[in-house]
Amino acid sequence: MLYIGVDLGGTDIKVGVVSEKGEILSKVSAPTLRERPYQAVVADIASLCKLAAEKAGVKMEDIAAIGAGVPGICKGGMIAFCTNLFWRDIPFVQELHKYVSQPVYIDNDATVAGYAESIAGVSAGTQSSVFLTLGTGVGGGIVLHGRPYSGAHGIGSEIGHMILKMDGEPCTCGNNGCLERYASATAIIREGRRALEKEPGSLMMEKCGADPEKLDAKMVIDCAKAGDPTAKRVFDAYVHAVAASIVSIINILDPQVIVLGGGVSKAGEFLLNAVREAVEPMIFMKGMPYTRIELAKLGADAGMIGAALLGHVE
Amino acid sequence: MLYIGVDLGGTDIKVGVVSEKGEILSKVSAPTLRERPYQAVVADIASLCKLAAEKAGVKMEDIAAIGAGVPGICKGGMIAFCTNLFWRDIPFVQELHKYVSQPVYIDNDATVAGYAESIAGVSAGTQSSVFLTLGTGVGGGIVLHGRPYSGAHGIGSEIGHMILKMDGEPCTCGNNGCLERYASATAIIREGRRALEKEPGSLMMEKCGADPEKLDAKMVIDCAKAGDPTAKRVFDAYVHAVAASIVSIINILDPQVIVLGGGVSKAGEFLLNAVREAVEPMIFMKGMPYTRIELAKLGADAGMIGAALLGHVE
Repeated sequence: MLYIGVDLGGTDIKVGVVSEKGEILSKVSAPTLRERPYQAVVADIASLCKLAAEKAGVKMEDIAAIGAGVPGICKGGMIAFCTNLFWRDIPFVQELHKYVSQPVYIDNDATVAGYAESIAGVSAGTQSSVFLTLGTGVGGGIVLHGRPYSGAHGIGSEIGHMILKMDGEPCTCGNNGCLERYASATAIIREGRRALEKEPGSLMMEKCGADPEKLDAKMVIDCAKAGDPTAKRVFDAYVHAVAASIVSIINILDPQVIVLGGGVSKAGEFLLNAVREAVEPMIFMKGMPYTRIELAKLGADAGMIGAALLGHVE
Repeated sequence: MLYIGVDLGGTDIKVGVVSEKGEILSKVSAPTLRERPYQAVVADIASLCKLAAEKAGVKMEDIAAIGAGVPGICKGGMIAFCTNLFWRDIPFVQELHKYVSQPVYIDNDATVAGYAESIAGVSAGTQSSVFLTLGTGVGGGIVLHGRPYSGAHGIGSEIGHMILKMDGEPCTCGNNGCLERYASATAIIREGRRALEKEPGSLMMEKCGADPEKLDAKMVIDCAKAGDPTAKRVFDAYVHAVAASIVSIINILDPQVIVLGGGVSKAGEFLLNAVREAVEPMIFMKGMPYTRIELAKLGADAGMIGAALLGHVE
């Protein structure tokens, strides 16, 4: 069976034909131009679907279903809420059905990325997994019983807004101490800058060209790798927060695998090993088998693959 | 269909015949005497099963299945870990099968209590719910897709050990800042005593007979109800912690209902209304429908009912 996956982002729309095993047969993209009415964006998505099919050398009739991953909250064919696109209560499925006859599915982008990993990525073959995108914010994707899980009202899986430190750092959501205030790239940068105020002699100062405003998460991690003690402290605190988040997820959901994706996960084994080491002594039931922790494998295409596979099985 | 439910506690074993609707037809009990080898405890459970059937006027052949709720971690018919009974890796199902021929199911006590509420209690008819026992500790029971959920390794649903305040109060589990350090009766007592050190003029001092060691959670809540400002502050901080815990659960699992049980929930509407009021402004997706928050209905029999119903449907 063949599927089309749509990765609808604030900047670009990526569309591809994907096999039921998660292989990409073709890929096309176009700018989202989000200032336009949603109807225009959806019309472009329909055109991109046809283009992707053409590029893969298949007919639209050969496509079993179309799925879209969107940076927001989906419920019953509607995009209830999508900050990046300024969309609210958009009848996405109905609109796309003006152009295509296939079943159309939509879900949150982090959720479908996690779903992709569970079919064609590092958690392939598992029935339960949690995907964490450690990026500017922290996104979450939950797969339970082999299917994406978004909760009873479509507002679950927002793991970045689990409260990790009650009354801690203020969050954009209005609460305090959300996980993403401690486990995101943004958190590394914030703490790196704070550390530079006290310890301007750190290697990080050199890396950012003596302009802490230019400090990014990669610089902090690279300096930690290079052995700079200030950067190492920032990195260790970050790892501690990620580990505490993972322990909370294990104590609630106990999935087979937790997958780390997003920009920060590009730190690779250096991050993974540190996180695994920090999690182990925090496990509630010592000595019992627990969740594997792994790095995401599918990279930037995960969203498109997972979206495509939403129609698989259903 | 009729089932037998076993509520295996550190002090007592309660056993009852339960209908598929969760009605109790008979109830018997005996002391656990946990110092004995597990074989003796299981033999007593078998006798209690027969006694409960007799009392209900039914034959053991009429019982479709037997279920047990235990204060610990269960996996594949084994009780992997049970602190109260000092049990580890006990082949419970195999042992009970020496006496009974029915299928035997086991699960965590908070999990089965939550399951009972979802069939015969306040969350009846829902497919997803989370049960929180606000007692000496905080237990959690998750029901997803209409079935008890314990995770891939049987160690999920330990919601009391979600980290609510990273690097906060030390917990018995070895970590810091676990939810149960803030949302349990123990937390109310601890904070009540701390408050009395600074404000000995509080009504709480009178209630506990001028002996803060005798202060209990009910006294603190009663004083808060009576308008004592010190007790009110302790109660408000408690409600804030429960609300933050609930918001985290919603942001991850987004269940249809969250049910508050355990000793503290006896504070009734006074607690429930305060918690609901505190949760509402903390909801991530403002204006969208979200989880109902309710008080448990089945009381002390929930564990027995839920255990009995483990065999239902399966």
